[in-house]
Amino acid sequence: MSAWNHRHLLGLEDLSREEILTILDRADAYAREPEGPPRPVLKGKVVVQLFFEPSTRTRISFGRAARRLGADTIDFTVSGSSVSKGESFIDTARNIEAMGADLIVVRHSTPGTPHLLAKHLRCGVVNAGDGAHEHPTQGLLDILTIRRKKGHIEGLTVGLVGDIAHSRVARSNIHGLRKLGARLIVCGPPTLVPQYLTTLGVEIAYHLDAILPQCDVINVLRIQFERQRSGLFPSIHEYAHLFGMNRERLALAKPDLLLLAPGPINRGVELTPEVADGPHSAILEQVSNGVAVRMAVLELLAQAREA
Amino acid sequence: MSAWNHRHLLGLEDLSREEILTILDRADAYAREPEGPPRPVLKGKVVVQLFFEPSTRTRISFGRAARRLGADTIDFTVSGSSVSKGESFIDTARNIEAMGADLIVVRHSTPGTPHLLAKHLRCGVVNAGDGAHEHPTQGLLDILTIRRKKGHIEGLTVGLVGDIAHSRVARSNIHGLRKLGARLIVCGPPTLVPQYLTTLGVEIAYHLDAILPQCDVINVLRIQFERQRSGLFPSIHEYAHLFGMNRERLALAKPDLLLLAPGPINRGVELTPEVADGPHSAILEQVSNGVAVRMAVLELLAQAREA
Amino acid sequence: MSAWNHRHLLGLEDLSREEILTILDRADAYAREPEGPPRPVLKGKVVVQLFFEPSTRTRISFGRAARRLGADTIDFTVSGSSVSKGESFIDTARNIEAMGADLIVVRHSTPGTPHLLAKHLRCGVVNAGDGAHEHPTQGLLDILTIRRKKGHIEGLTVGLVGDIAHSRVARSNIHGLRKLGARLIVCGPPTLVPQYLTTLGVEIAYHLDAILPQCDVINVLRIQFERQRSGLFPSIHEYAHLFGMNRERLALAKPDLLLLAPGPINRGVELTPEVADGPHSAILEQVSNGVAVRMAVLELLAQAREA
Repeated sequence: MSAWNHRHLLGLEDLSREEILTILDRADAYAREPEGPPRPVLKGKVVVQLFFEPSTRTRISFGRAARRLGADTIDFTVSGSSVSKGESFIDTARNIEAMGADLIVVRHSTPGTPHLLAKHLRCGVVNAGDGAHEHPTQGLLDILTIRRKKGHIEGLTVGLVGDIAHSRVARSNIHGLRKLGARLIVCGPPTLVPQYLTTLGVEIAYHLDAILPQCDVINVLRIQFERQRSGLFPSIHEYAHLFGMNRERLALAKPDLLLLAPGPINRGVELTPEVADGPHSAILEQVSNGVAVRMAVLELLAQAREA
Repeated sequence: MSAWNHRHLLGLEDLSREEILTILDRADAYAREPEGPPRPVLKGKVVVQLFFEPSTRTRISFGRAARRLGADTIDFTVSGSSVSKGESFIDTARNIEAMGADLIVVRHSTPGTPHLLAKHLRCGVVNAGDGAHEHPTQGLLDILTIRRKKGHIEGLTVGLVGDIAHSRVARSNIHGLRKLGARLIVCGPPTLVPQYLTTLGVEIAYHLDAILPQCDVINVLRIQFERQRSGLFPSIHEYAHLFGMNRERLALAKPDLLLLAPGPINRGVELTPEVADGPHSAILEQVSNGVAVRMAVLELLAQAREA
Repeated sequence: MSAWNHRHLLGLEDLSREEILTILDRADAYAREPEGPPRPVLKGKVVVQLFFEPSTRTRISFGRAARRLGADTIDFTVSGSSVSKGESFIDTARNIEAMGADLIVVRHSTPGTPHLLAKHLRCGVVNAGDGAHEHPTQGLLDILTIRRKKGHIEGLTVGLVGDIAHSRVARSNIHGLRKLGARLIVCGPPTLVPQYLTTLGVEIAYHLDAILPQCDVINVLRIQFERQRSGLFPSIHEYAHLFGMNRERLALAKPDLLLLAPGPINRGVELTPEVADGPHSAILEQVSNGVAVRMAVLELLAQAREA
């Protein structure tokens, strides 16, 4: 319980190495006992999910995490809400807080929305994805999955493959993994890999086959098909040919390569089905670790609020 | 607790007479104490409802049943989910399982969807309606209602009236009631009554007035108006005239005729309001028994998983 | 626990002064301990929210209140329900009751819908807004907020400002505050203030500046912009000029004026931001008090059902 005194989790950029390790250690304990005894550390607390973008797994995962800790959960999605009556975003959030919310989990297409909420609310705020900025619990669950599979992070070479430019998952992975001492290579079509990432201590590559032999971990980001329509890459087929993980490409990799994908995946694009379901893949472990990470985050934030 | 070792409930076709009786006996106990003491036999378990078709009563009924047994419930409907991001059905289900689901209740317009899930998942699967195939908990609640009202099933003559061809409820009733020894007559317009049902030991009739005097129970299936638009029967008015239950028709029936309707009903079509709300009708008992049946099913499946 | 033996809460018009005070006293106790020890007085009970109009705060507030008292809650909104299959409103409600509902919280655009339900159901019914008729828990939370801020109701002068004609909140405020001995002035454009309200013991005014100096409390009703489009007042700008609460107008008021707004508010129309967030405003206390009022109502109704 040492290194933690934040009342919000807005991004991994804001956390120290020790704070990230505090979350990971706690999450690891939860991951080891997925059906363990109840830990009602949030008994009587209220966790509100305020989602302005569609979500399956993140929303369900946070809800499950909160209730496993004994909290009451409230789902607030845009449809059917007062937002359609013209109420301002901050007023909506303040109202939710006034109903007794202790923690608000927010997803919004505008970067910085969670920071805005944190400034205006007394309750704790968790960023569940803000535009292309950060998605810290996804970054943490990727990192936890790597650590549980590899035993450590420091010294590993991790390749992030795909649409780096528009990916909040990429950004959270970069901040987290760099702080824990991994070497990071981002790889994708030049239109989808921004040059400024080198300032974050990241290496840039455009050919997956060239970096694959060096990687201990490959994290395959989701391709959003609308990027192709907007001309950022030539065709889905060509993308899959150059950057998709398939059996032939796996032959170039280390024998113990670990494959992650934050999902939802497009089978046959980022990964062939045989690779997605094969022995290198930890896709479903990521999902399970996600609940554990969110339990750890909610618990630490609630404790910081009480301290 | 004797005759049960299935990890899934996919259809009544798959169950033995003894297995059906095991569910009915357990459900009967729950039905007798609707506000009884809490029975947290699913404490710490997670029941996910994965619905790809709209539903009121089935979804609410399963949710209520699960929470009365102490489970955490997660509602997953198509809108606002990753399915819109192109994720495959099985990937969605596997992700839900990885978040800790113990039992998945699934409704889908494609027959066989629950069987597909059962093949790919480790958790238990309950069919809450798969196309025109089966809806086993509806069949069980119909049968439970008959048994509670009549005291037995064996030897009863049960008429199933309406759109037999497109009804998963009809199919589950037929399998369940035949195994328990009832005589079954299906009755409706020839376009809505498939001939092959005779191979299931069912009699076929086209004139309700002709069979009504023999029936101890009439189960009135819902007419979906789009069938009329597609030419399968001439008009709603004529349908109501030939197959609707009204006061005049009731005069032809046994004095203790039991009337069921799985609902939602179209008042004035399948039943006149005075019949729907009259002394023969057990429509609302069916709904109450539905919660009891689902409690029994969820409990038996959870126990089979642990065994 | 003295003055309460209603099984439904349909409107404040139906309640005596003593009954209103019974609710307020109980609600006040809950409001004093927002994070107090659990009071599972509704343990094992089922509260269903049957909403036929969009709602954020009312729906979440009732849900939170019910679960803080230990109830299971079921959300039933129109979309994705059997109502789209043509089922009658009463049949839907009876089905929900048959699944075990103890209390149904209903919102509907048709005045009298909760009364209709109360007539046809055995379970308790709470009106969460029926057209322009009543919204009793909103009225109660406004009154509770006044009493907690001012210490009493009797003898206070309360101004209700805005669209009185179409406001269920106005009607519930009027019935409740009159019974508790407040002087009430309704104020708005002549097209939005019906003359018949004088029969309820209410004074009518058309100029806010004229009544403001006499008021201890101003309750600012929401303007629905579609009223302007339908010609009931000339322009949003002119409305804000004549009836909006701003800093200049506040200078005319008593120094301890209390400002309420049932929300969601249109900032810059009914209130300027500096007034909405200023020292006179109790908007967020209203929201918090709303949960306490709903806890009190649900508890009293559940007790009356058992008695």
